[in-house]
Amino acid sequence: MPRYALLVEYDGTPFVGWQRQASGLSVQQVLEEAAAPLNAGRPAATMASGRTDAGVHAEGQVVQIDIALELHPDRLRDALNFHSRPHPVSVLAAALAPPDWSARFSCIGRGYRYRILNRRARPALMAGRVWHVQTPLDAEAMHAAAQGLLGRHDFSAFRAAACQAKDAMRTLDRLEVRRQGEEIHVLTEARSFLHHQVRNMVGTLAQVGLGRRPLSWPRELLDGRDRRKAGQNAPAEGLTFLFARYPQPLRWQD
Amino acid sequence: MPRYALLVEYDGTPFVGWQRQASGLSVQQVLEEAAAPLNAGRPAATMASGRTDAGVHAEGQVVQIDIALELHPDRLRDALNFHSRPHPVSVLAAALAPPDWSARFSCIGRGYRYRILNRRARPALMAGRVWHVQTPLDAEAMHAAAQGLLGRHDFSAFRAAACQAKDAMRTLDRLEVRRQGEEIHVLTEARSFLHHQVRNMVGTLAQVGLGRRPLSWPRELLDGRDRRKAGQNAPAEGLTFLFARYPQPLRWQD
Repeated sequence: MPRYALLVEYDGTPFVGWQRQASGLSVQQVLEEAAAPLNAGRPAATMASGRTDAGVHAEGQVVQIDIALELHPDRLRDALNFHSRPHPVSVLAAALAPPDWSARFSCIGRGYRYRILNRRARPALMAGRVWHVQTPLDAEAMHAAAQGLLGRHDFSAFRAAACQAKDAMRTLDRLEVRRQGEEIHVLTEARSFLHHQVRNMVGTLAQVGLGRRPLSWPRELLDGRDRRKAGQNAPAEGLTFLFARYPQPLRWQD
Repeated sequence: MPRYALLVEYDGTPFVGWQRQASGLSVQQVLEEAAAPLNAGRPAATMASGRTDAGVHAEGQVVQIDIALELHPDRLRDALNFHSRPHPVSVLAAALAPPDWSARFSCIGRGYRYRILNRRARPALMAGRVWHVQTPLDAEAMHAAAQGLLGRHDFSAFRAAACQAKDAMRTLDRLEVRRQGEEIHVLTEARSFLHHQVRNMVGTLAQVGLGRRPLSWPRELLDGRDRRKAGQNAPAEGLTFLFARYPQPLRWQD
């Protein structure tokens, strides 16, 4: 059965997350059911590079999908976009997957962006896409504090209670904070992240940006490895999965 | 009764447009009812610089509002944002209006942006914010053709059948088309526009961008003054009201 890679954009707002769950509609269910007409009427099996939580968006999620039919990747993309309407899930491109390739296990780099709307008035056009923080944040202080988290560490202080990873050692390659007008963007990249790691890091950096904690605090939390002491888990709606990197680049058709 | 100016952002998707209508909820109704607690319990009277249609968004609509209470503009902004929840309407700033000032009749310049998503895959994150055109558009050709519309002309060819303006003479100061990645943005500015003028101009330029009409066509249409011959009225959802200009700048508090 041929395996394809999909490059997928979605608005996470109406979904319980990437992963199928009995409690509601997931992005995975939308894609698997959209593929049924190409898969002898049965939902296709998928796996994603990043299992995003409820409310988290994607601009470049990478998904593997196994389909009974052998067909041109462009036709697969168009068929999935037709059958997944009107859900806010769009297949931007498709590719035949290399042999033994897994969207999740072959992935060697993942990137996220977190958006904070830092102004007095609540969001209208950006509702559901940003974390609204009314008090002015010092983005430069957040950036300086963030640099203390780079490198290979035990990130237990920033993992979710429900995180199922066997160990908490991760290598953080990038954690940049910069202001863009009324917004503050946090860009981060690692081979992989723990559950809630990005949102816990952002919530912690926000405490520094508000002036409530010193620049040294995020690193002290990291060293303490106690997840009960970190800042709030920043809301899901500000987070977007940007990209997944693989040793051999995928040959997207579009 | 003191008059205030409001700088307003809204997502036009759920509204019948700016203007109050019996057929459904308008942005005007949301703001007027949100002001009632500050206006002896009665909805306040408002007027906008631009009466946007159903589905059209705003990043910088300017609205006048007459309120029985004299209060600090910041308090007015915060109160309107509190009482207008959960509708996607947000007052970014407020100001005491200069004497004899009208949001509509004092306005000497209005600016709009039109967004086209020009890619094969339908929008997910940008659904409701862009016109989706799947066939590649030549933005440079559209820009070149647009320049023929600048200046003072009778824009009858680009007005809506229902347009109530007494005459169709308008002065178009700016009509720029540029590509930004997968999107094409059309930026336009004039003292005032006819009903549907921006969307009719965009629909006409798209015909040039698709290569179906020559660069000279939009100007020929203009000169012909026959509105039945223009390109399609581009969908409302791609249009955003950006700004309104006045002879004396408003002193926004924020």
